[in-house]
Amino acid sequence: MAKQNIFYAQSGGVTAVINATACGLIEAARAHKKSFGKVLVGRNGILGALHEELIDTTLESKAQIRALYHTPAGAFGSCRYKLKGLSEHKAEYERLLEVFAAHNIGYFMYNGGGDSQDTTHKVAQMSQLMGYPLTCIGIPKTVDNDLPITDNCPGFGSVAKYVAVSIREAGLDVASMAATSTKVFIMEVMGRHAGWIAAAGGLAADQEGQAPHIILFPEIALNEKAFLEKVDKCVKKYGYCAIVVSEGVKNSAGEFIASAGLKDAFGHTQLGGVAPVIAQLVKSKLGYKYHWAVCDYLQRAARHIASKTDVEQAYALGHKAIEFALEGKSGIMATIVRKAGKQYRWSIGTTPLETVANQEKCLPKHFIRADGFGITEACRDYLTPLIVGEDYPPYKNGLPQYVTLKNELVPKKLKTKFQEKR
Amino acid sequence: MAKQNIFYAQSGGVTAVINATACGLIEAARAHKKSFGKVLVGRNGILGALHEELIDTTLESKAQIRALYHTPAGAFGSCRYKLKGLSEHKAEYERLLEVFAAHNIGYFMYNGGGDSQDTTHKVAQMSQLMGYPLTCIGIPKTVDNDLPITDNCPGFGSVAKYVAVSIREAGLDVASMAATSTKVFIMEVMGRHAGWIAAAGGLAADQEGQAPHIILFPEIALNEKAFLEKVDKCVKKYGYCAIVVSEGVKNSAGEFIASAGLKDAFGHTQLGGVAPVIAQLVKSKLGYKYHWAVCDYLQRAARHIASKTDVEQAYALGHKAIEFALEGKSGIMATIVRKAGKQYRWSIGTTPLETVANQEKCLPKHFIRADGFGITEACRDYLTPLIVGEDYPPYKNGLPQYVTLKNELVPKKLKTKFQEKR
Repeated sequence: MAKQNIFYAQSGGVTAVINATACGLIEAARAHKKSFGKVLVGRNGILGALHEELIDTTLESKAQIRALYHTPAGAFGSCRYKLKGLSEHKAEYERLLEVFAAHNIGYFMYNGGGDSQDTTHKVAQMSQLMGYPLTCIGIPKTVDNDLPITDNCPGFGSVAKYVAVSIREAGLDVASMAATSTKVFIMEVMGRHAGWIAAAGGLAADQEGQAPHIILFPEIALNEKAFLEKVDKCVKKYGYCAIVVSEGVKNSAGEFIASAGLKDAFGHTQLGGVAPVIAQLVKSKLGYKYHWAVCDYLQRAARHIASKTDVEQAYALGHKAIEFALEGKSGIMATIVRKAGKQYRWSIGTTPLETVANQEKCLPKHFIRADGFGITEACRDYLTPLIVGEDYPPYKNGLPQYVTLKNELVPKKLKTKFQEKR
Repeated sequence: MAKQNIFYAQSGGVTAVINATACGLIEAARAHKKSFGKVLVGRNGILGALHEELIDTTLESKAQIRALYHTPAGAFGSCRYKLKGLSEHKAEYERLLEVFAAHNIGYFMYNGGGDSQDTTHKVAQMSQLMGYPLTCIGIPKTVDNDLPITDNCPGFGSVAKYVAVSIREAGLDVASMAATSTKVFIMEVMGRHAGWIAAAGGLAADQEGQAPHIILFPEIALNEKAFLEKVDKCVKKYGYCAIVVSEGVKNSAGEFIASAGLKDAFGHTQLGGVAPVIAQLVKSKLGYKYHWAVCDYLQRAARHIASKTDVEQAYALGHKAIEFALEGKSGIMATIVRKAGKQYRWSIGTTPLETVANQEKCLPKHFIRADGFGITEACRDYLTPLIVGEDYPPYKNGLPQYVTLKNELVPKKLKTKFQEKR
């Protein structure tokens, strides 16, 4: 059979290491030129396939592709666009396969979270239904670390490291100033539904009394009274209190605190920002001077402090996806497997797509301390290896040198245009 | 004359490199054991002197002192406590000299910003008035970079690097997502009165179209119309818009936007946070999806991404303070001097304390672009060398290893207690 091209796309929120996955995939495909044609990448994720906007990676030099290894965010553009069910939106799937057929694409490799793995699964089903042979391989990615089966998700380890480093550093700052100034510091992190990122903040505290003293998880409704008592006790005991709060923390009525609290000058509810709400609560009930930070995109883009383990896993997943295709595997997602034993070791495995599509893995109960405000030793044991190692990007004039690709599209072959359904 | 002890203290907001100054000072004093007694450090800054809480640094090992080089924040505690004028609060100055006399202190070395240099100056005057011989040397420190005479202030270069790196990384993130998601990103940075930190964000944009596209300075009242037009134009041209905003930006009425904008659910004005106010403005007037981050303490504590130039200068200032004392200099502040020539070279100089006390150096006009939303080439030329070089701390289990000192106090010798006047 003639060599076929590979379609690859990045989907959903980007990470510090998703380009390392692209690097691994493209380098592996180039190393197997006898088996594969070009790697064509969707411009802005799956939209690139629907609009027939396919980036020709063969026009990028070896050095440019290598530089993806240390470049954060999505070098080809990503998107938030979910393909609906097969029955409602059959036209979208048909369009995908039409584009794939026109460009001799025999491999569909989709790099994303739970929604994206659902898409990969549906594309796999559709290609079988329509008799279009397509090798479908999902590659995990999500800072939220909420995919099942895989031991962890690439992108998470680097956010975890950023969050733990940041609260350790800011904690020292507050400790220095607490005698006459700020006594309570609140740092808001991502994780709307799962508390993995907030939990990672807990790694900063090696010893009793170190920052963070309190973690607020989305899995646990905020108990105002218990929280305020803990803040007060902490300030009295250690002189200050450092708090990590997940953006997804809810009140006892089940509402997001971020949107329940603040109104702007016109009376509109302000979206986002749970840290200022918690700060105001502390100030109004306990009177302590506070400061707060909201990490937002900085945390997931922070390639400068990426976890070496995370970068290596992200790269390996892309590389292995090509090897799995060579082995004839399809309808699977690549996974990170934690090997048994005291020393942390990992390998890349596989799982059928239907086991991961549209699933969400929250922080298990035994990872959260009984009082609900911290992590357990089991959680620490799970998290620690994921942030180990540094992998610094190259610098010039004091700034990290990240690559911008040419991103030239292959000429369109279809006469028809695709209309997005929003 | 018998050897005398050195009093050293850290004052005001701490930085990623103020401990490097302490390291330089203590190492230099230890290298000159024939000339100096102990280095005694004020616990929580000048309050330590007033309360006779003096940390005995001779109890710290060589390795512990060396580790200060890579440890952020104030290892001995800092404070926000300003000594008032000589005439109103003579008792405070008398108390200081009483403590110094009791502990055989012949050197007063004070590490801080404009207010602290004013204190150093007043202590110098008072010691002369009272006939107590005291060598007084100020050592600069402030992330705000707003001290006069010195070319730049230690602490600033590392914040500048953090801000430039962060907006570069977050800018790539937004660019990846802009096709279907966030189009405007706002990052809030420190600098209540001077726009140096905000300006540093501008270093991230090497080329036309790169983040940040807009900088809002405290020196320039926000022109809402011009700002919104620029945001809109930027989104239309580049697909997204990345903004760095100083916490100190004001509206045309001269009020801080951070406190003029938001009210909480109880109608109280919310303190701090200009980024969400700007975000809301963009959303309500232009309708673009936004994200925002507030760096707060993370930026000034971020030793993990400190500027090597900054760390080296901070260390040299501490080291040189001891040499200046050996040379018999007093009533001076150590300064960073930029040497002439294309290649960046610096040395440590001195300036009389009266030239720096209570002064504030804002961003000069020719450093701000004519449209008020960016920096000029002159500004870039000034800023670039200050962020050059990386100086990574050591890591263990994925986290930077920062030192915690013993901080044992020397026994008190005075029977009297000091009462703070607030």
